[in-house]
Amino acid sequence: MTVAADMLSTHPKDFGGIDRDALVACIEACLECSQACTACADACLGEDMVAELTTCIRTNLDCADVCATTGRVFSRRTGYDADLTRAVLEACAAACRACGDECGSHAEMHEHCRICAEACRRCEQACRTLLSSLG
Amino acid sequence: MTVAADMLSTHPKDFGGIDRDALVACIEACLECSQACTACADACLGEDMVAELTTCIRTNLDCADVCATTGRVFSRRTGYDADLTRAVLEACAAACRACGDECGSHAEMHEHCRICAEACRRCEQACRTLLSSLG
Amino acid sequence: MTVAADMLSTHPKDFGGIDRDALVACIEACLECSQACTACADACLGEDMVAELTTCIRTNLDCADVCATTGRVFSRRTGYDADLTRAVLEACAAACRACGDECGSHAEMHEHCRICAEACRRCEQACRTLLSSLG
Amino acid sequence: MTVAADMLSTHPKDFGGIDRDALVACIEACLECSQACTACADACLGEDMVAELTTCIRTNLDCADVCATTGRVFSRRTGYDADLTRAVLEACAAACRACGDECGSHAEMHEHCRICAEACRRCEQACRTLLSSLG
Repeated sequence: MTVAADMLSTHPKDFGGIDRDALVACIEACLECSQACTACADACLGEDMVAELTTCIRTNLDCADVCATTGRVFSRRTGYDADLTRAVLEACAAACRACGDECGSHAEMHEHCRICAEACRRCEQACRTLLSSLG
Repeated sequence: MTVAADMLSTHPKDFGGIDRDALVACIEACLECSQACTACADACLGEDMVAELTTCIRTNLDCADVCATTGRVFSRRTGYDADLTRAVLEACAAACRACGDECGSHAEMHEHCRICAEACRRCEQACRTLLSSLG
Repeated sequence: MTVAADMLSTHPKDFGGIDRDALVACIEACLECSQACTACADACLGEDMVAELTTCIRTNLDCADVCATTGRVFSRRTGYDADLTRAVLEACAAACRACGDECGSHAEMHEHCRICAEACRRCEQACRTLLSSLG
Repeated sequence: MTVAADMLSTHPKDFGGIDRDALVACIEACLECSQACTACADACLGEDMVAELTTCIRTNLDCADVCATTGRVFSRRTGYDADLTRAVLEACAAACRACGDECGSHAEMHEHCRICAEACRRCEQACRTLLSSLG
């Protein structure tokens, strides 16, 4: 059991119909992706060809922020707003899609972009799985 | 001129068709709303009747995070992803709507909820105005 | 009255001996500096000479994060840990010092760095004033 | 290998004398602790005795923010400011100490506080180990 799963299993409130496994997977994918994007932006800054990576850096920074916020919103289970829940997951999936595509286009040249693109794709998938489970 | 407006006016890139006044207004409303929500959550924690304010606190915390991220994403103008831009604004408007309604329902009893609800409504409006200006 | 000042004045708890004006000034300087640093990092990414601005971008990103967190911690007045309060202010002053120096060194070439350096210096000063007022 | 370790090992820059294992451990402990504190604040909000947990919630929220920022600052290795590095680690250790103590005092009553206190203690230790390794 991870700490995120432990914290969820000891929460005093019922979570309605939400799929707990999908919820934990989404929180953990968001944390992992946010860190990978922060690190990838910095690794891109350290490359000699940084001038060709500016779109990648910007996309990384946006994705890092959106994933961090999504991980926080879904770590809170007291109260629930259906519109907000869906909108945040849509925004996170859009950020991960944009960043996964951009990093993916540099994956053959930069190993950090390849690893980051994979983290983005896992996170996008985790958000879409959770969205589907909301019915 | 505010610092946010100054920063925008000295950015080296063209911003495409985006309405600069609506952009600055949105960034500033997001910062103001994020701080108000953080402070309102804490003020609610300090009330004797905190047990009746737990939904308000949770909504405040979500809104603080979403507004902070929205203010950051819109402070970046290098590169641009239309899907992400719209999805982030939709999420921020949803967070401000939920928080403005919740805080608004305590506005007669708690002055901090009244002030916070107003900040949420201004921010929701600023997000919707910017969304409309995107065409 | 700003919203931050309004929120503080309607908080139900006594704040001990803290200087309210210094507290509001610090919160507002943190928000302003965090936004300026986020925008300056992006403006630097948009410059043709981005390869010479990578240290500036990294310093901006650190300062943006540290100021955002400092603004949040000082927006909460329920409970109080003296060690944490001091350590956060020291970290914020150090981040603003480093970023103000780095941006300041590009101020003659880039207007966004000049404006950002001024925001950093104001925020460093606001943190040091609040630190002094803690006795 | 975790994603954080992978990202570090593919960074193009030399890291000076920093201990890479201590660095990865600190980044991962910060992410884990930040999420645990966000979730613990929410779980406390869901308890019937929330009025007795307000200091715990506030301490959780501060610790969540400080750990998130620390994890980001240490995910960036381009450039390096010794004063900032030390000050951020001191602030994070102070936040984790305060939160570990507060959550620890509720550990027998609330399982989420027990798990969160353990995450705080691991993160405080990881920060102190990294501080020591800086020489």
